[in-house]
Amino acid sequence: MASRTATALVHPDRADLEFTTVLAALSDPVRLAIVARLADVWPDGELACTTFALPVSKSTQSGHFKVLREAGVIRQRDEGTRRLNSLRRDDLDARFPGLLDIAVPQGRAILASW
Amino acid sequence: MASRTATALVHPDRADLEFTTVLAALSDPVRLAIVARLADVWPDGELACTTFALPVSKSTQSGHFKVLREAGVIRQRDEGTRRLNSLRRDDLDARFPGLLDIAVPQGRAILASW
Repeated sequence: MASRTATALVHPDRADLEFTTVLAALSDPVRLAIVARLADVWPDGELACTTFALPVSKSTQSGHFKVLREAGVIRQRDEGTRRLNSLRRDDLDARFPGLLDIAVPQGRAILASW
Repeated sequence: MASRTATALVHPDRADLEFTTVLAALSDPVRLAIVARLADVWPDGELACTTFALPVSKSTQSGHFKVLREAGVIRQRDEGTRRLNSLRRDDLDARFPGLLDIAVPQGRAILASW
């Protein structure tokens, strides 16, 4: 977005991830679908927000990415006019082993249903 | 509660459990603590609502039990003036294998922190 400001994107440290906050972030079909897509390009892949064809408005989509970032589920960085997203799989697997193994297939099922 | 009506308590069938709804139900410290206590008396144990010493008001507590029941996480039945709760571990393990294995220790940690 050309209107994007240079405000730093805040990410919680691994030690500060909270289980209930992460569950809340994953408790939405659109967010779960985002996580599944990022899981499929992990560990080296990043996807720009604009590459997600989600059945919600652009502003709703931005809100979903923000919830995921603030919960510590994804990492975001700006590169030019693009905002790139990646899954914090290493951090999540370290803090809550097995959770993504359960959540990602559920997200894939949601993607397949669209 | 003496004022309790005889309205049937609704429980979703196993096949109708939704992953995102279950995650949302588990994404609260009080509800996670309830689940951990029920897990520790499963499979034969039932606990009356009044036996949970939770750091919330009685009406807030009732709301938490309702969220858990409607998501399919717990089963509730009335016996006289008591409302008894049990964990739907068999249903949850069948639909979302491993999820309670991750969530219950987190709930125990919350209980231990109170």
